[in-house]
Amino acid sequence: MGSDSDLAVMAECVKVLEGYGVGYDIRVLSAHRSPDHAVRFARSAERRGFEVVIAGAGGSAHLAGVVAAHTLLPVIGVPLAGSPLSGFDALLSTVQMPPGVPVATVGVGPMGAANAGHLAVTIMGVADPLLRRKLAGRRRSQTESVLAKSKGLPKRLAELLGR
Amino acid sequence: MGSDSDLAVMAECVKVLEGYGVGYDIRVLSAHRSPDHAVRFARSAERRGFEVVIAGAGGSAHLAGVVAAHTLLPVIGVPLAGSPLSGFDALLSTVQMPPGVPVATVGVGPMGAANAGHLAVTIMGVADPLLRRKLAGRRRSQTESVLAKSKGLPKRLAELLGR
Amino acid sequence: MGSDSDLAVMAECVKVLEGYGVGYDIRVLSAHRSPDHAVRFARSAERRGFEVVIAGAGGSAHLAGVVAAHTLLPVIGVPLAGSPLSGFDALLSTVQMPPGVPVATVGVGPMGAANAGHLAVTIMGVADPLLRRKLAGRRRSQTESVLAKSKGLPKRLAELLGR
Amino acid sequence: MGSDSDLAVMAECVKVLEGYGVGYDIRVLSAHRSPDHAVRFARSAERRGFEVVIAGAGGSAHLAGVVAAHTLLPVIGVPLAGSPLSGFDALLSTVQMPPGVPVATVGVGPMGAANAGHLAVTIMGVADPLLRRKLAGRRRSQTESVLAKSKGLPKRLAELLGR
Amino acid sequence: MGSDSDLAVMAECVKVLEGYGVGYDIRVLSAHRSPDHAVRFARSAERRGFEVVIAGAGGSAHLAGVVAAHTLLPVIGVPLAGSPLSGFDALLSTVQMPPGVPVATVGVGPMGAANAGHLAVTIMGVADPLLRRKLAGRRRSQTESVLAKSKGLPKRLAELLGR
Amino acid sequence: MGSDSDLAVMAECVKVLEGYGVGYDIRVLSAHRSPDHAVRFARSAERRGFEVVIAGAGGSAHLAGVVAAHTLLPVIGVPLAGSPLSGFDALLSTVQMPPGVPVATVGVGPMGAANAGHLAVTIMGVADPLLRRKLAGRRRSQTESVLAKSKGLPKRLAELLGR
Amino acid sequence: MGSDSDLAVMAECVKVLEGYGVGYDIRVLSAHRSPDHAVRFARSAERRGFEVVIAGAGGSAHLAGVVAAHTLLPVIGVPLAGSPLSGFDALLSTVQMPPGVPVATVGVGPMGAANAGHLAVTIMGVADPLLRRKLAGRRRSQTESVLAKSKGLPKRLAELLGR
Amino acid sequence: MGSDSDLAVMAECVKVLEGYGVGYDIRVLSAHRSPDHAVRFARSAERRGFEVVIAGAGGSAHLAGVVAAHTLLPVIGVPLAGSPLSGFDALLSTVQMPPGVPVATVGVGPMGAANAGHLAVTIMGVADPLLRRKLAGRRRSQTESVLAKSKGLPKRLAELLGR
Repeated sequence: MGSDSDLAVMAECVKVLEGYGVGYDIRVLSAHRSPDHAVRFARSAERRGFEVVIAGAGGSAHLAGVVAAHTLLPVIGVPLAGSPLSGFDALLSTVQMPPGVPVATVGVGPMGAANAGHLAVTIMGVADPLLRRKLAGRRRSQTESVLAKSKGLPKRLAELLGR
Repeated sequence: MGSDSDLAVMAECVKVLEGYGVGYDIRVLSAHRSPDHAVRFARSAERRGFEVVIAGAGGSAHLAGVVAAHTLLPVIGVPLAGSPLSGFDALLSTVQMPPGVPVATVGVGPMGAANAGHLAVTIMGVADPLLRRKLAGRRRSQTESVLAKSKGLPKRLAELLGR
Repeated sequence: MGSDSDLAVMAECVKVLEGYGVGYDIRVLSAHRSPDHAVRFARSAERRGFEVVIAGAGGSAHLAGVVAAHTLLPVIGVPLAGSPLSGFDALLSTVQMPPGVPVATVGVGPMGAANAGHLAVTIMGVADPLLRRKLAGRRRSQTESVLAKSKGLPKRLAELLGR
Repeated sequence: MGSDSDLAVMAECVKVLEGYGVGYDIRVLSAHRSPDHAVRFARSAERRGFEVVIAGAGGSAHLAGVVAAHTLLPVIGVPLAGSPLSGFDALLSTVQMPPGVPVATVGVGPMGAANAGHLAVTIMGVADPLLRRKLAGRRRSQTESVLAKSKGLPKRLAELLGR
Repeated sequence: MGSDSDLAVMAECVKVLEGYGVGYDIRVLSAHRSPDHAVRFARSAERRGFEVVIAGAGGSAHLAGVVAAHTLLPVIGVPLAGSPLSGFDALLSTVQMPPGVPVATVGVGPMGAANAGHLAVTIMGVADPLLRRKLAGRRRSQTESVLAKSKGLPKRLAELLGR
Repeated sequence: MGSDSDLAVMAECVKVLEGYGVGYDIRVLSAHRSPDHAVRFARSAERRGFEVVIAGAGGSAHLAGVVAAHTLLPVIGVPLAGSPLSGFDALLSTVQMPPGVPVATVGVGPMGAANAGHLAVTIMGVADPLLRRKLAGRRRSQTESVLAKSKGLPKRLAELLGR
Repeated sequence: MGSDSDLAVMAECVKVLEGYGVGYDIRVLSAHRSPDHAVRFARSAERRGFEVVIAGAGGSAHLAGVVAAHTLLPVIGVPLAGSPLSGFDALLSTVQMPPGVPVATVGVGPMGAANAGHLAVTIMGVADPLLRRKLAGRRRSQTESVLAKSKGLPKRLAELLGR
Repeated sequence: MGSDSDLAVMAECVKVLEGYGVGYDIRVLSAHRSPDHAVRFARSAERRGFEVVIAGAGGSAHLAGVVAAHTLLPVIGVPLAGSPLSGFDALLSTVQMPPGVPVATVGVGPMGAANAGHLAVTIMGVADPLLRRKLAGRRRSQTESVLAKSKGLPKRLAELLGR
């Protein structure tokens, strides 16, 4: 992540990864304030055994792009919404990459951070049948959760309407 | 792609895939006008040996999301700019997915279409050293192309300024 | 609705429908997290006697579009404002549908949710003179409410200005 | 429509209505330049046997809202993209109606105009089984058209790539 | 104003008018929920001696436009920011009027409401030397207030920085 | 106007003024490139007998605001759409003025330029019964023009559809 | 700054300048409410020994542009986010200057205010080796701070996740 | 510049620099496609005697930010408008930098490119009285040009109106 103030949002991603039992490493790397460390990390990521890099940043969110320029691993970009411009800045900074250096961009904020975890596992699942089975299980339980919430809706509505 | 009118833009993606020697299948599938076929394709994609799905659509671009809801493969979304709203509609429709069903979104238009191809190969490269080597080669030639263009710049500038 | 977290907003719609004495059924159906149930519901809605479907969703709001693709009933889309992008994402995802599969889109948030109820009754009123009479009554009382508030304005202004 | 300069776009709507064999009446009515006629039309529309009103306008697109304020018929709003602001102005002017006076808004421009026709027929179909059958037929032929275009895609791609 | 919920914001306008000693009348008139009263008011405003009409509304802010269509008096539009779209909707709905029926639009929210008062007095001042003198006085005291605040700045800064 | 490249658009305003028989003076004054002349003009405008000032500018459109800061006359701002940002920049620069120094803002581009002329005449009409009669005549002919165009619509539609 | 209500945000700039030991002068100058003082200040700034001017303003943020029109010193513009439009208005008003009168624009809000200080020192550093050394020191300590925060991240994450 | 396709726009900057007789070096450096060369250039720029760096890029415009992270020289960012998103992406990517690494951002497109040249000279002028004199001369001739164009306006207007 580009700043330690992004921790609470990016923790949504950590929870998802832990839910799949996938290992991870977490650090603050700024494309602008610690650029050499960001480049060094990006360059060594493949060699050190990482399979996917997830970069969350706000404002002029360059972190995902800078990492993508220095690694052949898939890079997932999470636009964060810290500035007064509500994350429009981070979204456009992250997604509009030039041809040849793509960033797999997910949604703005905590929902996007969670989805970065899901996407990373999906990517790793291409070559890992066990992860794919876990993904399938996750999808099933997610559907069941929706159905359960749907069943409970009339009761919650009645409460909301004070009946 | 969501409409055959998207062919010229999505051809940029095809060119990239062919450049890496990666096989592909191309079709028109509309989340709204042929929804059953879209769902059937998405459900069978993994079984039929696809490793990544790329979905390009404009306007209320739901295709990538609908496919992502029915497969465990990574889905790359390409927002297209056909409507009067310049692709802002397709970008937001594609990227803001709910937790659990991510779409790896790339940029709007032809540059995004090309990057969808690069991203697909990057994802497949996680488990394929040969593809990673091809990616490395592509990166090198891309850098060389930038440097060559940089060298030719003074001459082009002189021409432009009529000297 | 696409998520149970949308209940408080969509309850505005329920209140309106109850005000007209129109029956309804309420459920959580996610275009992405329970897609088969959403499709099954959409396909069976006409047969089960529904006359209009109202779909409220935020972010990449695909629910209304997915339902519209699977039913011949009118589908009303309510864009919800949950994400950091303030509902611009849900609005554009809902309204910019391709030709042949329209979604009748209303405003963003609670006002839109209430209007979805009014619009549903207006649509049902095309073939139902009793409903049209109720609509006429609602319009009259709405006008009277505006006039009453207008009359009370000078007093409230005086209070506000501390006189 | 709000201006005769909108004719070419609104003709997309006419074509759709004619395709379903649905009668229509077409006129220029400006919320601002011929407001009395717009109000008079809106007030008399129900009595004169209209079942749905479609209003296309650009810029500060008030036409749909003004008509909706004076009729109990469903009003469909088509935001047009004539101004330098690309239709964002017309979209927001049309869709963000206050509670009690909804406008069923469709997409910006020609695609929205066509969809206004489809939506009108869908609304009329609630009480008209014959129209519903026509809608079902239209959906089928629309799906077949997508599939046919999908089949022709490889050949068109080959041509595009100069093979 | 279009709704009594706009009172707190539009009171900024009242304060300004009272500051100049200019008489005013305040009411709730909805372009959509009490359209006949709005039209009747607009039509009679000139005859009843009003010189300027100020219309504040949010969302699909049609009030200023509807009033402008029915009077030859100058109409000032104040876009209000109540909806999730932060007033962008009201601004574009108010300002993008068709040729021949202008609305003099001021800024979004309380600052715009205050400025509507100043603008009304400026317009009335064209034919009223006394009002112009009051405007000149207001400008002077406004400048003095800025200078006074400027002088106090170092002290406030010291306090803010805890010195 | 802020630049001579704005002439074609601002000529729409001139045509409107001439249509009412209202005298005018036209000049290029840049808030940034000839600021002293702009200030001097603004300061002397009232004394020289101007009743309204119309300022058209694009990009960071400061001209209307700078003039408004130096005169007690009503200032009408026309946001022009010359930059890649389509006039959103000029609109926001013109309309969001601080309390005490209002700019009466009209729409973006040629329609706004025409409306600046109509608004100026409306403002001058507050104290000029003859101008108000001309305005009334203009409104009538405008309505007649709409009705005439409405009558001609079926024929034009038939031509458009090739019948 | 354009208003004393901007003090809390612009204080971020002051802290940065003091961190470098760079002298400064702080005042409220409004392009619209005290325009003569703003112009007088701008004209005299170079003579009085200022090297850079920093102008923070919100809404129709004209201050930076007005100052830039009257001085040959570099002018840094800080767009502030006070209005309902979240600073988009101030950003576009500040950055889109016409050729010949540039404003060096930084980001919206407190981060931009801090960066205005850093940018001013960077500009002054072009001719001042001591300042450049201070800048280098600041960059180093900034990098160290990022690294330190990165090291502390696992512990903070554990706390956040309640372990 | 980030791509040789930006040459025509960035040539506007070159023309301005040549007009002041200021030396320059021009090259293509991509933050993503030739990142090492971009970093190496940025790091060596101060040592090689550059005083200001101007970086023009479109889309996810990271070039200015990456250069700013590796040099203590002032970096001017020119957002370019090549993508379907009209330069909003490049503007937000360039201007919203984190505290400590500012980019002096100018307007979008050719006008911004020209202004980057003017801003560079203004920055260099802080320590160079000769450049300041040239700037003063440029300002004067710019004002004269505006006045000359203003004088020619009535004639051009007459031509435009066909008189």
